[in-house]
Amino acid sequence: MKLPSLPGQFALLPYMLKWLLLATVIAIMAGTASAFLLFALDWATQTRITHRWLIWLLPVAGFVIGWIYLRFGQQVEAGNNLLLDEIADPKKIIPLRMAPLVLLGTTVSHLFGASVGREGTAVQMGAALADQITRMFNMQPQDRRIILMAGISAGFASVFGTPLAGAIFGLEVLAVGRLRYDALMPCVIAAIVADQVGLLWGVQHTHYGVSTMPPIAAWSLLAMVIAGAIFGLTGKLFALATHTLSGWMKKWLTWAPLRPLVGGALIAASVFYFGADRYIGLGIPTIVQAFEQPLPPYDFLAKMAFTVASLGSGFKGGEVTPLFYIGATLGNALAPLLNLPFSMLAAIGFVAVFAGAANTPIASTLMAMEIFGSEIGVFAAIACAVSYLFSGHGGIYRSQRAISSKHTRTGEDGD
Amino acid sequence: MKLPSLPGQFALLPYMLKWLLLATVIAIMAGTASAFLLFALDWATQTRITHRWLIWLLPVAGFVIGWIYLRFGQQVEAGNNLLLDEIADPKKIIPLRMAPLVLLGTTVSHLFGASVGREGTAVQMGAALADQITRMFNMQPQDRRIILMAGISAGFASVFGTPLAGAIFGLEVLAVGRLRYDALMPCVIAAIVADQVGLLWGVQHTHYGVSTMPPIAAWSLLAMVIAGAIFGLTGKLFALATHTLSGWMKKWLTWAPLRPLVGGALIAASVFYFGADRYIGLGIPTIVQAFEQPLPPYDFLAKMAFTVASLGSGFKGGEVTPLFYIGATLGNALAPLLNLPFSMLAAIGFVAVFAGAANTPIASTLMAMEIFGSEIGVFAAIACAVSYLFSGHGGIYRSQRAISSKHTRTGEDGD
Repeated sequence: MKLPSLPGQFALLPYMLKWLLLATVIAIMAGTASAFLLFALDWATQTRITHRWLIWLLPVAGFVIGWIYLRFGQQVEAGNNLLLDEIADPKKIIPLRMAPLVLLGTTVSHLFGASVGREGTAVQMGAALADQITRMFNMQPQDRRIILMAGISAGFASVFGTPLAGAIFGLEVLAVGRLRYDALMPCVIAAIVADQVGLLWGVQHTHYGVSTMPPIAAWSLLAMVIAGAIFGLTGKLFALATHTLSGWMKKWLTWAPLRPLVGGALIAASVFYFGADRYIGLGIPTIVQAFEQPLPPYDFLAKMAFTVASLGSGFKGGEVTPLFYIGATLGNALAPLLNLPFSMLAAIGFVAVFAGAANTPIASTLMAMEIFGSEIGVFAAIACAVSYLFSGHGGIYRSQRAISSKHTRTGEDGD
Repeated sequence: MKLPSLPGQFALLPYMLKWLLLATVIAIMAGTASAFLLFALDWATQTRITHRWLIWLLPVAGFVIGWIYLRFGQQVEAGNNLLLDEIADPKKIIPLRMAPLVLLGTTVSHLFGASVGREGTAVQMGAALADQITRMFNMQPQDRRIILMAGISAGFASVFGTPLAGAIFGLEVLAVGRLRYDALMPCVIAAIVADQVGLLWGVQHTHYGVSTMPPIAAWSLLAMVIAGAIFGLTGKLFALATHTLSGWMKKWLTWAPLRPLVGGALIAASVFYFGADRYIGLGIPTIVQAFEQPLPPYDFLAKMAFTVASLGSGFKGGEVTPLFYIGATLGNALAPLLNLPFSMLAAIGFVAVFAGAANTPIASTLMAMEIFGSEIGVFAAIACAVSYLFSGHGGIYRSQRAISSKHTRTGEDGD
């Protein structure tokens, strides 16, 4: 029988103080960077709406972004995938230039009307800034891994105002089918503090409200299974389409700056031809509408097309806010078919398409509870778990490791 | 470039239907068993309060439980640890008798005034009933593992009325430092449906309310780190004390029925000598008080002593409700020292001591959000993550696998 080793636990105090300090420093940098990004995107979006002709310059803007990345950013172009690779197999400090390059690329992408998100930017800024600590203090590889994860958590948490989803996202996104706990405390602290830092800078996150929550009953639970499967397939389709277009682009347009030039020309022409302004940029007003009123059932497909074209041709930003848009509008469209309140199904789609595409079902369920209240948790958990199951083993992050099967039918479903 | 393999996903439909059906059947059995347990415990507690002299019979009751387990229950005596062992290394179907034996042992323990919980009972009934499906349908080992996990999730969810905490508990309790996702969907469905089945039987869960939530600020967050460390050390102390007493008992009293006889005599004498009725049974009224008014600061230690004596000598039930009691009263006592509202710190202690002792920080954070609302999530996440860090690599479940270190200082803290 081992006797109580309580004094041994006191050896944890220096460990905890170290990580409290590091996580707080990471949080201050990432939260500040996210605040800056959010203000820049507000400016870019307002400017684009005021001067609609800017969209015609999207191909030029794309060319410039492509050229800048070709000239100065080849080491950091892989973006989120570079972070996942470095965490799985540490090789080289993330160059600090990742942060200003992705901030610039994202702001320019939004100013001229690409359909992209912002989580990639926040996550890359958070992790690139955090990794400079590694250099300054000459950290060990296992510490560096945690620093990068805390940077991801802090960036995600502060850009969306969802600290718990951010904390778990940093742990969950690394691998499909497994979550490790050794970075739990640093990621939790970094995410929560970064969110507070963003708020201190005056960031205001959009409020999405679920007006009617259905009672928990046989049908409403079963509907979550059906909707979850549809959301998961949608997430899979999104990831596959983006990767496929990106692959074609790289094959046929070997000089990188040509890709966003061509993509931007197509997007700009489509916006003016179809009057499709609602499908470019972050699309926050449409997401808000999805909680308030019935929308055209093809909104989610159109947004997917514009986003796949934007990301697949090399514009910068990220996938997550477009996935929120796709999920919320698809949920809105499915609501009458499933006989559920559309604000509730918009909320479920908002998190569940993302859960499937990013393979992060627990972070997505927590996000639902943080944004919409804990009552939605039961519905969100089913939809996110089923979406995760149906989205296959690929996802929007190519460098995510597939650790274990999503189910007990490994190898049978063609993934 | 791989082309979209969407049709492959349709092969998931039979998989999903199978697990929907299995999880629902497991949920109906586990939810019904939990409802029965909760009604039996209500009756036992009321009867004991009405006939206080019953406590004098605790040694006799203990002897009878010990004898019955020696005679009929040796295969199932390991309880939760047997479940964890079978999931990690499947050998033999859990005998059905685990369910009635633990139900009887727990009800008798409560009727005569042992200080024990109920989650062990619910979890063992849920998993033992679920495992009978393995026998009936001759399931494969990897399917059986998921069936047992779903049984654990369903039992936990329905006995506490916390479906999401139950779902994640079934995944998280298996190993320290890692969570695998292959049972996610079955556990989520089983937990949510089992909770609903319990409610349909008329179960009413105690409502604990947090009257004042402090603002998120530097001090309130830092206080969660300090409180989390204290809660984690408390959880560690509880687990060590229980294992140590149990080891001594087994060494000095080799004939099993003598252990609860001796333990029961000590507990009964202490109850009457000290008038310590508030420390036996589930202790729900005291937990409720911890959210409402200042309590004696030694309450948590006294409850720990009575529970360690009860579980260490062989009474049945489980650790979790006593851990809620210990955490809530300790939080209540710490509140003035940390300058926080005591209902809020009672709520944090409620989940965080459990998080440390059971090594289940995510399930505990979700439990806080389910019981107290999503606003508490940020505070609970810090306290549970720090508690998990400080509780060491042992815990209340000896058969929990230690997969990876809790931190990057492996081997340095004596665990």
